[in-house]
Amino acid sequence: MKPALIIVDMLKDTFRRHPESPIVLECKKFIPFLNDFIDLFHAKNYPVVFACDSFLPEDFIFRAGLKPHSLRGTEGSEPIDELHRSPSDHIVQKRRFSAFFKTDLDQTLRTLGVDRIFVSGIATNICVLTTALDAVSNDFSAVIMEQCCAAHNPEAHLAVIKAYKKTPLHPLLQVLNNKECLELLKAQ
Amino acid sequence: MKPALIIVDMLKDTFRRHPESPIVLECKKFIPFLNDFIDLFHAKNYPVVFACDSFLPEDFIFRAGLKPHSLRGTEGSEPIDELHRSPSDHIVQKRRFSAFFKTDLDQTLRTLGVDRIFVSGIATNICVLTTALDAVSNDFSAVIMEQCCAAHNPEAHLAVIKAYKKTPLHPLLQVLNNKECLELLKAQ
Amino acid sequence: MKPALIIVDMLKDTFRRHPESPIVLECKKFIPFLNDFIDLFHAKNYPVVFACDSFLPEDFIFRAGLKPHSLRGTEGSEPIDELHRSPSDHIVQKRRFSAFFKTDLDQTLRTLGVDRIFVSGIATNICVLTTALDAVSNDFSAVIMEQCCAAHNPEAHLAVIKAYKKTPLHPLLQVLNNKECLELLKAQ
Amino acid sequence: MKPALIIVDMLKDTFRRHPESPIVLECKKFIPFLNDFIDLFHAKNYPVVFACDSFLPEDFIFRAGLKPHSLRGTEGSEPIDELHRSPSDHIVQKRRFSAFFKTDLDQTLRTLGVDRIFVSGIATNICVLTTALDAVSNDFSAVIMEQCCAAHNPEAHLAVIKAYKKTPLHPLLQVLNNKECLELLKAQ
Repeated sequence: MKPALIIVDMLKDTFRRHPESPIVLECKKFIPFLNDFIDLFHAKNYPVVFACDSFLPEDFIFRAGLKPHSLRGTEGSEPIDELHRSPSDHIVQKRRFSAFFKTDLDQTLRTLGVDRIFVSGIATNICVLTTALDAVSNDFSAVIMEQCCAAHNPEAHLAVIKAYKKTPLHPLLQVLNNKECLELLKAQ
Repeated sequence: MKPALIIVDMLKDTFRRHPESPIVLECKKFIPFLNDFIDLFHAKNYPVVFACDSFLPEDFIFRAGLKPHSLRGTEGSEPIDELHRSPSDHIVQKRRFSAFFKTDLDQTLRTLGVDRIFVSGIATNICVLTTALDAVSNDFSAVIMEQCCAAHNPEAHLAVIKAYKKTPLHPLLQVLNNKECLELLKAQ
Repeated sequence: MKPALIIVDMLKDTFRRHPESPIVLECKKFIPFLNDFIDLFHAKNYPVVFACDSFLPEDFIFRAGLKPHSLRGTEGSEPIDELHRSPSDHIVQKRRFSAFFKTDLDQTLRTLGVDRIFVSGIATNICVLTTALDAVSNDFSAVIMEQCCAAHNPEAHLAVIKAYKKTPLHPLLQVLNNKECLELLKAQ
Repeated sequence: MKPALIIVDMLKDTFRRHPESPIVLECKKFIPFLNDFIDLFHAKNYPVVFACDSFLPEDFIFRAGLKPHSLRGTEGSEPIDELHRSPSDHIVQKRRFSAFFKTDLDQTLRTLGVDRIFVSGIATNICVLTTALDAVSNDFSAVIMEQCCAAHNPEAHLAVIKAYKKTPLHPLLQVLNNKECLELLKAQ
């Protein structure tokens, strides 16, 4: 297999505006481990993709309680500096939840020969999950990295981890901890 | 608002081949209530959409444990007869989970002036959930009808219901029981 | 290479309602040759795809001079009986011009291992051309079968044939006559 | 109506590498007029969109004669400085021909309330034409600005202008000269 690492919505706006929010605090715990994975993918020349919210102020999803953030063209929609980005990494500006929604990520992955993606970031129950499920819809295997993602509260995170550990889609869709991710990466 | 009712994957293959499976038994419990909703949408001239798996035998998702089923062009990929279908209802042949994935459902809903969809059917944690989230991605409000959907086991169903009851997307995405759905429909 | 044959919009509504129109008369001339190609693809077990307009009466494109036709679910949106259809052929219900627009044709072709499509049917300057260009966009080589397609007038047909014979996309996009198509098919 | 102006592939790589090519020479003739339109759209607060090729070196379309150019993340894939860009203009990074292919331009235009696009740039017969036709596919009216676009040779340009002046899609799809474009813009 040829894997790619997808890092979803680890963005400056979220980390700067809500540094003490539960989801950011959870992220800060796993960033060192996520950076280890980024280093590993870089070392192996496997693609690393930063999928970043890139909204318009007028967007539909801001009609509810969400305040405009991660606006297209602003620094707030960029990945946080704590992550080990390389100039050769891919940036996907996404308008909604899934990194595949109205983007060319599927074509990029096919062009690069990728057949499996490892999905990390936030939030587990929205953007991480939809990215993993859309990967399978697009004929890629997907791994939700359960120890490298977080939700707005631990219950929502755990509910997703539990609900997708065992589905009829296994093993096209898997939920793996860091150790299991490493083993799968080495097994190739 | 103008709502549409989406009925996901209530298909002959599933009901005929696995009549005693937990998910089919759950479905049989809610079919009378779902038919009441279908009748209501018909009476109000609101669109009713049957979103139906329509696979090829060679499809990627059959590379795991799933046996080929709901194949394109076969009777098994049609909605079960127990549902109150009308000739004017819409059929969406979908290739994967979400009713929006590589279909023209978004265009159909916009053309018909729909701004909110009510999502029912199976499975709560895969096709129902992705359809609801893709609806929001496509700028439609979405309601997961928690008493008119089911998963392969009650835990997976409940995990999803719980995880999406309260998200930052509320009220663009809601999880409502039958009584709450009726109230929302009457409130318009 | 593994080719597929795409037959665009050779539909009952067009042929029954306008049997003496210039475009239908042109089609009648090439149907025998197109049937030869269909037979050849069937004999080789290469996929044959009928891409068929499948509109809603409320569709945007009917806001201009076009009268509603080829409506979804009606017999008028089916391929004409004169073509050598086989039960194993693929039907793509398309909502607009290109056979790839909001359909899963790209996924079907990849799943079947196809890398080049031969495009025939009507109209050369709208649905045939957009299907061929979208094929290249989706990383398939494309051949416009210049002797198996027609436009609403010969000038529009010839203008397209001429304009795309030599583009910077050659040979990913080619315009070939029947003899050249056969040679390319045999060369594999 | 609310119009948007789409400027297709007026990119630094093309203008710098091939300053004396026929297509660039043609472009230089119409840039003053195109800038007048850009100024007009800015003055009216109508959206202006720069649709820019944004390829990967490994892309399918480079398997033919085309040399890699307009690569994602490089300055060569940016609009030329001669155009009157404003910071509030939209940039669409496109992977293929049409500005709508695997991008969120349709959603952007709907979100901004746009119902008609004016398409300019290069090349008339590939990226301009597919953008205009995809606009109609996505339920927007489209105008090909015949005096603000060019092809790799005048014949290919004229063939397209002629072939699409009168189609069954008129007036959803129109080909207009500068004077007619201005009149249509004032008529609103």
